[in-house]
Amino acid sequence: MASVDLNGAMEERTVEELRGPTNPMVSPLLTDLYQFTMAYAYWKAGKHLDRAVFDLFFRKNPFGGEFTVFGGLEECIRLIANFKFKDEEISFLRSIMPTCEDGFFDYLREIDCSDVEVYAISEGSVVFPKIPLMRIEGPVAVVQLLETPFVNLVNYSSLVTTNAARHRFVAGKSKTLLEFGLRRAQGPDGGISASRYCYMGGFDSTSNVAAGRLFGIPLRGTHSHAFVSSFMCLDEIASKALRSHDGSSTCENFVGLVQSWLHKLQLADSLSGLFGETNQSELAAFTSYALALPHNFLALVDTYDVMRSGVPNFCAVALALGDLGYKATGIRLDSGDLAYLSIEARKFFGAIEKEFGVPGFGKMIITASNDLNEETIDALNKQGHEVDAFGIGTYLVTCYAQAALGCVFKLVEINNQPRIKLSEDVTKVSIPCKKRCFRLYGKEGYALVDIMIGQNETPPKAGERILCRHPFIESKRAYVVPQRVEELLKCYWPGDSHKPREVLPPLQKMRDHCMDHLDQMRPDHMRRLNPTPYKVSVSAKLYDFIHYLWLNEAPVGELL
Amino acid sequence: MASVDLNGAMEERTVEELRGPTNPMVSPLLTDLYQFTMAYAYWKAGKHLDRAVFDLFFRKNPFGGEFTVFGGLEECIRLIANFKFKDEEISFLRSIMPTCEDGFFDYLREIDCSDVEVYAISEGSVVFPKIPLMRIEGPVAVVQLLETPFVNLVNYSSLVTTNAARHRFVAGKSKTLLEFGLRRAQGPDGGISASRYCYMGGFDSTSNVAAGRLFGIPLRGTHSHAFVSSFMCLDEIASKALRSHDGSSTCENFVGLVQSWLHKLQLADSLSGLFGETNQSELAAFTSYALALPHNFLALVDTYDVMRSGVPNFCAVALALGDLGYKATGIRLDSGDLAYLSIEARKFFGAIEKEFGVPGFGKMIITASNDLNEETIDALNKQGHEVDAFGIGTYLVTCYAQAALGCVFKLVEINNQPRIKLSEDVTKVSIPCKKRCFRLYGKEGYALVDIMIGQNETPPKAGERILCRHPFIESKRAYVVPQRVEELLKCYWPGDSHKPREVLPPLQKMRDHCMDHLDQMRPDHMRRLNPTPYKVSVSAKLYDFIHYLWLNEAPVGELL
Repeated sequence: MASVDLNGAMEERTVEELRGPTNPMVSPLLTDLYQFTMAYAYWKAGKHLDRAVFDLFFRKNPFGGEFTVFGGLEECIRLIANFKFKDEEISFLRSIMPTCEDGFFDYLREIDCSDVEVYAISEGSVVFPKIPLMRIEGPVAVVQLLETPFVNLVNYSSLVTTNAARHRFVAGKSKTLLEFGLRRAQGPDGGISASRYCYMGGFDSTSNVAAGRLFGIPLRGTHSHAFVSSFMCLDEIASKALRSHDGSSTCENFVGLVQSWLHKLQLADSLSGLFGETNQSELAAFTSYALALPHNFLALVDTYDVMRSGVPNFCAVALALGDLGYKATGIRLDSGDLAYLSIEARKFFGAIEKEFGVPGFGKMIITASNDLNEETIDALNKQGHEVDAFGIGTYLVTCYAQAALGCVFKLVEINNQPRIKLSEDVTKVSIPCKKRCFRLYGKEGYALVDIMIGQNETPPKAGERILCRHPFIESKRAYVVPQRVEELLKCYWPGDSHKPREVLPPLQKMRDHCMDHLDQMRPDHMRRLNPTPYKVSVSAKLYDFIHYLWLNEAPVGELL
Repeated sequence: MASVDLNGAMEERTVEELRGPTNPMVSPLLTDLYQFTMAYAYWKAGKHLDRAVFDLFFRKNPFGGEFTVFGGLEECIRLIANFKFKDEEISFLRSIMPTCEDGFFDYLREIDCSDVEVYAISEGSVVFPKIPLMRIEGPVAVVQLLETPFVNLVNYSSLVTTNAARHRFVAGKSKTLLEFGLRRAQGPDGGISASRYCYMGGFDSTSNVAAGRLFGIPLRGTHSHAFVSSFMCLDEIASKALRSHDGSSTCENFVGLVQSWLHKLQLADSLSGLFGETNQSELAAFTSYALALPHNFLALVDTYDVMRSGVPNFCAVALALGDLGYKATGIRLDSGDLAYLSIEARKFFGAIEKEFGVPGFGKMIITASNDLNEETIDALNKQGHEVDAFGIGTYLVTCYAQAALGCVFKLVEINNQPRIKLSEDVTKVSIPCKKRCFRLYGKEGYALVDIMIGQNETPPKAGERILCRHPFIESKRAYVVPQRVEELLKCYWPGDSHKPREVLPPLQKMRDHCMDHLDQMRPDHMRRLNPTPYKVSVSAKLYDFIHYLWLNEAPVGELL
């Protein structure tokens, strides 16, 4: 089996380059059965080539917040670039739809996405409810087949990117954020997607080696509790020699050097009474780890007792490494009171720096893990702590606080006829028409409002006053004079390969774009507590049209 | 690219047959970086071949319940059956671990799982906290590499299977359960896994065509709101002819036949005043769908107004189909008060059966969807409803109520030395030793208690009294005389291919096993409200040993 090259997202790619290996789980069959039964009904009615426009959007920001980050676009474009039924897939469809005419399967066999156009907001952008993230236009039967995979690909990607951005926001820019979620993710590709989109949303690294390889995400990791408890005592260490960092000498008995440092620590005045006998299996594990990876010694210090065993054992090994010119990286805390333990550990490191004159020892990196999430990091911040890096898994990758975004894919126009989806619940009414969407920026550079207009309306211009209306509530409206106008929907798949299209940037650039975009939002939209809703509007003309359609489409009595 | 044959789970397979195509997202690199850094440290210390035993288990049942269903075993066995590093994977590892010696990479290149043994509970079984779902034994470096993917593969699979079983439990055995989750699942393979394990947990079908193909799960689906609103009026229907079911005649104007039925309904005494003009684009959509798929006409009736438009339009088409010998399937409700609407629709169908003498018309299938979950189905049951089938998506596949199970993988023995993982939180203390596990059944056939014993202890026997102790709380103990004893951990991967091993059953058999197993549990363990915790115990000998180790492993002062 060939290796899975999901995309080699390290370099900028034109869409043409996307033809080829894709996520092998994604095939044209990765869709709901009813897309095929509908396609057949369209085909039978001779309507399958009707030109339809669908909007992909969501109705509510997740996690109780007022923003979302858009992810998943590249995967959608990759799907349509490779959209073609294989013979065995056609045979399977024939077997499950035995009453359908042969001509339909001949039609399916010919389908590709050369007649589909996709306009989308750039991936990694901050986005808001009701505004289409993507506008998909093409033959109705084909575009319907894309509904399920597109919604699938955008839902989780956007949700987990948003979750990552929220974690970055609460942790602050100065902290290191490590994604540790693979084991708790929803399946193998849930884990791979999580790593990819958490990085885009502002994490610094992942523990997931497969994702590191596929997407060039920095990899981080040290050792587990099992590693510590797999050792019994120092006698187990057969090879005790360690070459110095500069290669100039070799310490023949690194174990002895560690032991002598531990002894010095036990006798040091400034540490007196803080600890006594440390755990010997832990000391053996740390020493072994340092012998193997002296350049990157980061120890998990909570297997037995953080302050009475883990931290002193770590320091003994770190000081011994220091004698040989190596600089230890730091510790990881995975249980207990992380605020208290991080502060105590920091004091211990500071005392050593002072007592033994080891510059920088007090700045040892303290990493915290153990079921962290937005709330626990916020609580740590309020309490005060000395943590430099957070390792976050379960709550991040499963989006535990809200496990679904709820993107939808709604028909807004067919054969140039605008369509509206009504609902008794006004938040579920869709905005009809093929539309253009703009973001209007104010004087301070912050985004003020998004506006949707009909495809043929005059677009808003910088410096010109425009009326922005709430799509449904008559009284909510405001005139805005934007300093800058950004068109949100850009062409990512023009169908015709000669037309210009947007380039899909590599993951690192999408991450930069995401960070920039988050910075362009007014802070009150982004805060955790009582954020201000960002305004989403329609033009006056589109407002009137929505309400005209609404009155005319609703059956008699529905609006009474 | 070859098509992805995840396993063709329709037939029973020996483990040998699992060598070959596997989930392409699963590779030996799908693991945490620290498994490789630890492997290197083991290798450097000459400990990499130390014989280690790890238990994979969880600590708490999900969803506030008192049971879990085990899923994901086959995927784990498939991983180890194919576990082998490719040259390009070794090269990548070398690039991210540049200070490691060449010999380590030569060692990795040689690794396979022929020296690993896996004992596990059969997939689809009802399982409980602390009892190992899997016991993995082998060279410590290799088994560590398996930790992350095994936990990943078991976590979501078990969680979603359990969620499905809980939905089945609340819906009752007589209802049809349709999994509609693909678009809301956490990525493509999240969707495929969800379909697989929801079926195992008791669902009847999926909408996911790819999963239907891979696993032979029955497929179901009809049409969407977009299909309805893509039609304008009946004039759009070009081809109006429909052959009768028995092929004996052709109705040249099926549209006219539908219109005449609608007219009869409007005039019928028993339906008088219930509706007036129905929506014509909806009628056109239903008629087109029936013309295409007359054998399977199920209509989504809530695009405009269920009782004033959707249901009457559906009935007109269903009655016209009836004239040609076809039996319509039913309706789907996707919004509004599902209890009320299902009851009203049922009355409407009953009135038609009576008024027009159409036997069985009153029994038309009513399907409900729209953000259903355990709570909403429970509420519907309490209110009373006429729903026959539930279509469930978001809450089911994302495990919205609790998005993570939290399986762990703990070292319990190395080189025949039992290891214990201590923690200040007693629920996090692991049960040491290589163990055997048994389920003891009582007179009524229900499971009474699970018990773990040391590998070399005498196993419990039917009819013989045995002391079952809580692993940590001294006062909790009971003598049990089991009527039947079932050994839970069976050999699924003996390493040596000549040794006997369990066969991996096809998905349908695992589903049957799961249903049987759920029936063998006392109902009070399974109920939604205040379920009784099922007891999990250890033998007297193992109890004593745990507490001996605990006292000896804890650093001085920890237990004070």
